Amino acid sequence: MTIEVKPSAVTTGPITGSRKIFSHPPGRPDLAVPFREVALAGGEAPLRIYDPSGPYTDPATRIDLEAGLPPLRAAWLAARGFSTIPGRTLRAEDNGGVDGAHLVPPCPASPPIRAGIGGKPVTQYEFARAGVITEEMIYVAHRENLGRAEALADAAERRADGEDFGASIPEFITPDFVRAEIAAGRAIIPANINHPELEPMIIGRNFLVKVNANIGNSAVTSSAAEEVEKLVWAIRWGADTVMDLSTGRNIHNIRGWILRNAPVPIGTVPIYQALEKVDGEPEKLTWEVFRDTLIEQAEQGVDYFTIHAGVRLSHVPLTARRTTGIVSRGGSIMARWCLSHHRESFLYERFEEICDIMRRYDVSFSLGDGLRPGSIADANDAAQFAELETLGELTKIAWAKGCQVMIEGPGHVPMHKIKVNMEKQLAVCGEAPFYTLGPLTTDIAPGYDHITSAIGAAMIGWFGTAMLCYVTPKEHLGLPNRDDVKTGVITYRIAAHAADLAKGHPSAKLRDDAVSRARFDFRWEDQFNLALDPDTARAFHDETLPKEAHKVAHFCSMCGPKFCSMRITQDLRAEAERLAGMAAKSDEFRDHGGALYVPAAAASVTP
Amino acid sequence: MTIEVKPSAVTTGPITGSRKIFSHPPGRPDLAVPFREVALAGGEAPLRIYDPSGPYTDPATRIDLEAGLPPLRAAWLAARGFSTIPGRTLRAEDNGGVDGAHLVPPCPASPPIRAGIGGKPVTQYEFARAGVITEEMIYVAHRENLGRAEALADAAERRADGEDFGASIPEFITPDFVRAEIAAGRAIIPANINHPELEPMIIGRNFLVKVNANIGNSAVTSSAAEEVEKLVWAIRWGADTVMDLSTGRNIHNIRGWILRNAPVPIGTVPIYQALEKVDGEPEKLTWEVFRDTLIEQAEQGVDYFTIHAGVRLSHVPLTARRTTGIVSRGGSIMARWCLSHHRESFLYERFEEICDIMRRYDVSFSLGDGLRPGSIADANDAAQFAELETLGELTKIAWAKGCQVMIEGPGHVPMHKIKVNMEKQLAVCGEAPFYTLGPLTTDIAPGYDHITSAIGAAMIGWFGTAMLCYVTPKEHLGLPNRDDVKTGVITYRIAAHAADLAKGHPSAKLRDDAVSRARFDFRWEDQFNLALDPDTARAFHDETLPKEAHKVAHFCSMCGPKFCSMRITQDLRAEAERLAGMAAKSDEFRDHGGALYVPAAAASVTP
Repeated sequence: MTIEVKPSAVTTGPITGSRKIFSHPPGRPDLAVPFREVALAGGEAPLRIYDPSGPYTDPATRIDLEAGLPPLRAAWLAARGFSTIPGRTLRAEDNGGVDGAHLVPPCPASPPIRAGIGGKPVTQYEFARAGVITEEMIYVAHRENLGRAEALADAAERRADGEDFGASIPEFITPDFVRAEIAAGRAIIPANINHPELEPMIIGRNFLVKVNANIGNSAVTSSAAEEVEKLVWAIRWGADTVMDLSTGRNIHNIRGWILRNAPVPIGTVPIYQALEKVDGEPEKLTWEVFRDTLIEQAEQGVDYFTIHAGVRLSHVPLTARRTTGIVSRGGSIMARWCLSHHRESFLYERFEEICDIMRRYDVSFSLGDGLRPGSIADANDAAQFAELETLGELTKIAWAKGCQVMIEGPGHVPMHKIKVNMEKQLAVCGEAPFYTLGPLTTDIAPGYDHITSAIGAAMIGWFGTAMLCYVTPKEHLGLPNRDDVKTGVITYRIAAHAADLAKGHPSAKLRDDAVSRARFDFRWEDQFNLALDPDTARAFHDETLPKEAHKVAHFCSMCGPKFCSMRITQDLRAEAERLAGMAAKSDEFRDHGGALYVPAAAASVTP
Repeated sequence: MTIEVKPSAVTTGPITGSRKIFSHPPGRPDLAVPFREVALAGGEAPLRIYDPSGPYTDPATRIDLEAGLPPLRAAWLAARGFSTIPGRTLRAEDNGGVDGAHLVPPCPASPPIRAGIGGKPVTQYEFARAGVITEEMIYVAHRENLGRAEALADAAERRADGEDFGASIPEFITPDFVRAEIAAGRAIIPANINHPELEPMIIGRNFLVKVNANIGNSAVTSSAAEEVEKLVWAIRWGADTVMDLSTGRNIHNIRGWILRNAPVPIGTVPIYQALEKVDGEPEKLTWEVFRDTLIEQAEQGVDYFTIHAGVRLSHVPLTARRTTGIVSRGGSIMARWCLSHHRESFLYERFEEICDIMRRYDVSFSLGDGLRPGSIADANDAAQFAELETLGELTKIAWAKGCQVMIEGPGHVPMHKIKVNMEKQLAVCGEAPFYTLGPLTTDIAPGYDHITSAIGAAMIGWFGTAMLCYVTPKEHLGLPNRDDVKTGVITYRIAAHAADLAKGHPSAKLRDDAVSRARFDFRWEDQFNLALDPDTARAFHDETLPKEAHKVAHFCSMCGPKFCSMRITQDLRAEAERLAGMAAKSDEFRDHGGALYVPAAAASVTP
């Protein structure tokens, strides 16, 4: 069975049934924001869909992995007066000591290495606080609106009903709204100044809920294209950011290939690479090795770092009676370091220095939840919440240092304990965006943890989580293959969209309604093309009704022509409108004294 | 691609890693209640799992479809003094007019046909109201406890934390608690007196959340064994009841094969067969044809009927402006009948007569939601809630007539509109059990509607829904195949279990904790065997680490040996316990002034 992606090149071409379009924010013809557009039959206007898939789905772009993607942000960055620096010198240990034939060559594309300088704004947070609207802010504002000015001309329609639990989603997203949200720490645009290929996106409670996919290398991989394909495949199906969790040989060079070809923010966990540099022995980790790794990755263009600075020495004993101990890799590494040295975590002690490094390149913090629960039994325990308090403390330090911050969250949490996670996070971390893994709502379904966790993810997204880290069917069992990654991403797009709908995001319902109208009108092609996964929808339909004629049939194989409720309803509606005017009758019932239905008392029950 | 189940016989044999056991309620050695038991390593007691799979997973039972299953309830029923009647005479139209070589022969097993008589209790509701505890009540009480007396010796452990939204789940389920819940109308035991093969189960808010799977024939099917296999396959993976939604030829005889071989309650929608008898033309339906079909199916032993008596003439105009009209087959049939005759529904007008028929055999009502929303756009609208009010009215009539009742619910509902569905149902229908289809929380993922709906199902189950009707990946697209049915059932078992956990059901957490301990101890075999789907869990693990030695390895392929957080934690725990006594340190931190963590102020942040 396939467990590795081994394409000869990366996947390109449009997603079935849609085409890439570019739209310009008002007054900014220089900014071209990508969307997917689905053309519809039945006299309907085309539907615009948020599109993180990058140039790979644009037939007009020639993909050349060696050249990297077009540096969309190069001119914006060049205008900001950053220093160009020689950059850190590559060391053999950066690639795990591999050389000769086993060394993956570096990506030939090499944009200038930039660094911010003291006193002038570098990060989106600093610009926002200074009242400056950046190109990135204008870009994401237009991206988030999803054309709702045109699609929802009526103001009442833009006020979708929903329960937002204190979020404040405006009718329109303006660039200044984006700026204000970033300045308040409620949103981030992860965008390293050394990642000019990035198509900016925003993570925050008052924006569309985002999805992260994790990718990683494996021992047998040797081709850079294979690693880039994992990224391309994940964003094709809707991942908004990608974390590269690779370990082992060639990781520096492969990270370079990924970044030069990534239109989405790339996150990493630098402690993994630091650990490699000390032969995998946590006790041997030092601040110097870690610091050097941060600079190495920041100069390559990584957009956000998971930093497990909340795992303090004093928190470790709180995990002693847990059912599943510490399940975060970073968390367990740092706990081991703290205990073996009987010292406070160097990540905690050196946190301000870490901020200074990350600010310099505008690498966003993803403050890691090293003590997240790994089981229903350990949910919401003392260790988890002690760490969260520390993350709140660190958030304020990072803001004071000018950095963008989001907070990682659990994990494994039964449904009745999810909401308090969101509430505590908002209270303790000053509304910094929450970024959760699931949570899984039960532990009894290994092999189906994309589903156990999608339940929790949809709920916590509704409650206010800004980004959901996907879980694949292989969680707890093994490495996800290509199909698992797709299933994980689609599942999490469902969770994120269900959350957007429930929050009352003005544009979210447009797509549901378009699918529903297509369904009722038996426009099968439209239904497939509007689906999160058009290929699977079509394939499932064609399993039982493969003929082309069936694509316009007024039934499907579930009920067949005689029993199709939608066909019966259509017939009925046509007949009723001829006979008596159903709509008028409907009004009559609706308007009669405000009663929405005929009171039971007004009707007689025949005995 | 396979779209039909075509086994030579039905699937038998134990579910991997477990064995069938029978346990007797206190003082009732004559009642043998089935469970699955998973033996565990690491010195753990075996775990008892609820088991709806029937004799098919018991190697000690010889399966003979022609003889039918052992009539477990025969002696109980015989003792109740029901009449034995000749029964209705079979008509050619019952099998769709098919004959000769195309006719599926009737199942040779033919238990005596029984009918209740006036004045003496027939239904579980009537027995419960009369203060009588039936064998069925004793059986389900023992079944629901899941051995918690032994597993949770400490009373504090039986009071699992949870949020039950007003449900009252007791520490132990006693037969009298079951009786009281049935007498209050809060629970039903669907158990036709002509279905002696049934292993009784209970549906109610204060019991484990149940799952229904739908099966149906298709035009090309001709073998009874194939149809029985669909049932056997669904219950093997955890379906608690099965609805037979077959239409067309041979349905009477195939239903006979299914019932004689069904250890779970079988539900049907009699209007489907009635429609067949009038050539598929809703206008030609009459009370007489419908009444005859009710008797036909009740005498065969169907345990619950979906009756769409809430689709009243006056409700139909309320659907005129809907995005997706009427999506229930039964609802659209009745709406069409009402409009074409310009008359009130005969199901509504004849409701008391329907009750009299169903009471006679103890067929439970599943009051159909013929006007349920078929899209996010139509959720919670006037038509839906008008029908719900009518269902509340009918519930009280059915109770007055001595019948057991549950209420069907939607459908397609965004997350923020789910809770009010449960609240209204409880209020309007006097706490009669709610039985919902999903609900789907978004419409944009055809091909993945088991997931869009599992999110809603888990939530509404938590809020109080007693049974969840599964949705397969093929929903809206085509007929589910064998894999789809399994995926649908497992997905809904996840939703039901997540709901049980969140409600604080005392036994639910036992299984999660057992999985988590197995996971932390690297007891891979135990983890697989405790899973909802042991075969898939094992197969996923073996894709990357197939060797037997890896089944005891202290890592998996996700992180590898160097990066395994659980391994690191175990090492760390062992070391820490040697060094300083982590538990003691933990207590120190916990007990210090009640603070759960070290206050941030007590630590210094190194600049």
